[in-house]
Amino acid sequence: MSTKKEKGMNNQAMEPLAIGIDIGGTGTKYGIVDKVGNLLFSGEMSTKKHLTVEPFIDELYLCLAPFIEQAGGVGRIKGIGIGAHNGNYYKNTIEHAANLPWKGIIPFGKMIEDKFKLPVVLTNDANAAAIGEMMYGAAQDMHDFIMITLGTGVGSGIVANGKLIYGHDGFAGELGHTIIIPDGRYHEGTGKHGSLESYASATGVRLNALEFLEKSDKPSLLRKIPKEKIDSKQVHDAAIEGDELAKEIFDYTGKILGMALANFVMFSNPEAIVLFGGLTKAGDYILKPTRDYMEANLIQVFQNKVKILVSHLKESDAAILGASALVWEMK
Amino acid sequence: MSTKKEKGMNNQAMEPLAIGIDIGGTGTKYGIVDKVGNLLFSGEMSTKKHLTVEPFIDELYLCLAPFIEQAGGVGRIKGIGIGAHNGNYYKNTIEHAANLPWKGIIPFGKMIEDKFKLPVVLTNDANAAAIGEMMYGAAQDMHDFIMITLGTGVGSGIVANGKLIYGHDGFAGELGHTIIIPDGRYHEGTGKHGSLESYASATGVRLNALEFLEKSDKPSLLRKIPKEKIDSKQVHDAAIEGDELAKEIFDYTGKILGMALANFVMFSNPEAIVLFGGLTKAGDYILKPTRDYMEANLIQVFQNKVKILVSHLKESDAAILGASALVWEMK
Repeated sequence: MSTKKEKGMNNQAMEPLAIGIDIGGTGTKYGIVDKVGNLLFSGEMSTKKHLTVEPFIDELYLCLAPFIEQAGGVGRIKGIGIGAHNGNYYKNTIEHAANLPWKGIIPFGKMIEDKFKLPVVLTNDANAAAIGEMMYGAAQDMHDFIMITLGTGVGSGIVANGKLIYGHDGFAGELGHTIIIPDGRYHEGTGKHGSLESYASATGVRLNALEFLEKSDKPSLLRKIPKEKIDSKQVHDAAIEGDELAKEIFDYTGKILGMALANFVMFSNPEAIVLFGGLTKAGDYILKPTRDYMEANLIQVFQNKVKILVSHLKESDAAILGASALVWEMK
Repeated sequence: MSTKKEKGMNNQAMEPLAIGIDIGGTGTKYGIVDKVGNLLFSGEMSTKKHLTVEPFIDELYLCLAPFIEQAGGVGRIKGIGIGAHNGNYYKNTIEHAANLPWKGIIPFGKMIEDKFKLPVVLTNDANAAAIGEMMYGAAQDMHDFIMITLGTGVGSGIVANGKLIYGHDGFAGELGHTIIIPDGRYHEGTGKHGSLESYASATGVRLNALEFLEKSDKPSLLRKIPKEKIDSKQVHDAAIEGDELAKEIFDYTGKILGMALANFVMFSNPEAIVLFGGLTKAGDYILKPTRDYMEANLIQVFQNKVKILVSHLKESDAAILGASALVWEMK
């Protein structure tokens, strides 16, 4: 721990802190955050090596305990915020999360509460990210916006009237699973056809690329890469080199994403849509067609009003910040 | 005015009343409503015969003035609630309403306020209907539901966290214009392709019927009706007679509506979807396929949870009740 950090902490000795935990399919990030979004301590551990949840929680506790001590002890911590795929805000559970090793309905919040002796708030990872953007990121001072995370999958968090929409059962904001192409591409995780996630995630861009390579006989840098190795980063690299097919792949992805965003705008009329995650690194190759096709599908009253923003939070910190931000919303 | 009504009014002499006005493309309904939803006075006048808005407001005032007098004078009225196509809640305007004779952006709320000397709240007709359902109808005590009006067009009002979603610009809930079939049927009013309204409105069912009659050579009672006279009621009548093609037309309509409802569920995870309007009269011919296709497109966490309800408010009163209910929500 640096002297600088110690000093900072002494200056605000009475201020409460929050723990943020982001549980991903591969790794789990955790940290201790102050109210203005400074990440005082942080670390990462493996999620997938724990096939059952109890040893996972034991290891998480061992990782966090010394940080809690250094931060001034458990009395200094207001609570623990957790973001996890299929996390349920009302029940503090993780339910049927396809990307986690633990199956069924897990009373995760209660288990963490018992272990850490701290109040816990839990929601899905994209909802946590939305709260993070509202407190520290691109959506500050916004009352109506939609957060879309474009990673391996597509997640979302929706804020309306200044509040996150959790819905009646706590699962609102599964926009990645909305159907955009009826009877379209099969999604292995859900068994459904034509969902946004099947086309506009990193996985989707890879599948779009394979389809374009097969359908067209246009020359392309991508043809030099073994099929099993093609991913969205390589499509981006090819586009930078001027590869026409790579640009067409992003245009197609942006067409589907833009159409979906138009539908979301006509639902909740947000001030902005904040995009986050790996796919946004492709910049205007993906953003320009997305904007164009969104506008093309909007009816007049919505046209040229809704901003598409890219999150400027550091990807490694954003998930922890978002999860910790849930704590400040606790009653 | 009946003695019964006078008595009722004397008993609650101190209770404020609200005026509700529903402005439709053809007619305008108005009435005076008490806080528990009793329609004390009501009437209807033509909308479309007034090509400009000023004489329309003059006539509306002449219609309502004697009712206001009988209700105890203007001091007894808390305010006026108005539902109108493309009504904007924040600006009290009606903007570019395709089905009204008045073009452009009309400061309708302000004009009514000046004429009646009463505070005015204005929103789109489907939002007003949603508030009406929440106060007096199928959505009582619900905090998260979606109202869908299936009439000549498709309108919607969305309630989340117990509040209507107006969105950043006041136009949220245009679900009839969400794209369900990419590059699908052209919509004359908007110039867009494949919107829900193009398929699942009364107009849409008529077009579905014409398409089915042309594509198939199945015998059908509908073939005896001149094409220009086929409407959703006749498709319903034929279905009741056991007409297979008519049932297929409703199945197709329900497939598209069900897919759209699944998308809306994955957005805001409502407790129920309340359907209202002419198309619901087709009962299970439309409701059963709608439910089935909705469930088929939902991911696991939403399945078998969301109720599809049909509004039980009397259609002629519901619009006035909904508009008047806005007044009780006024600050």
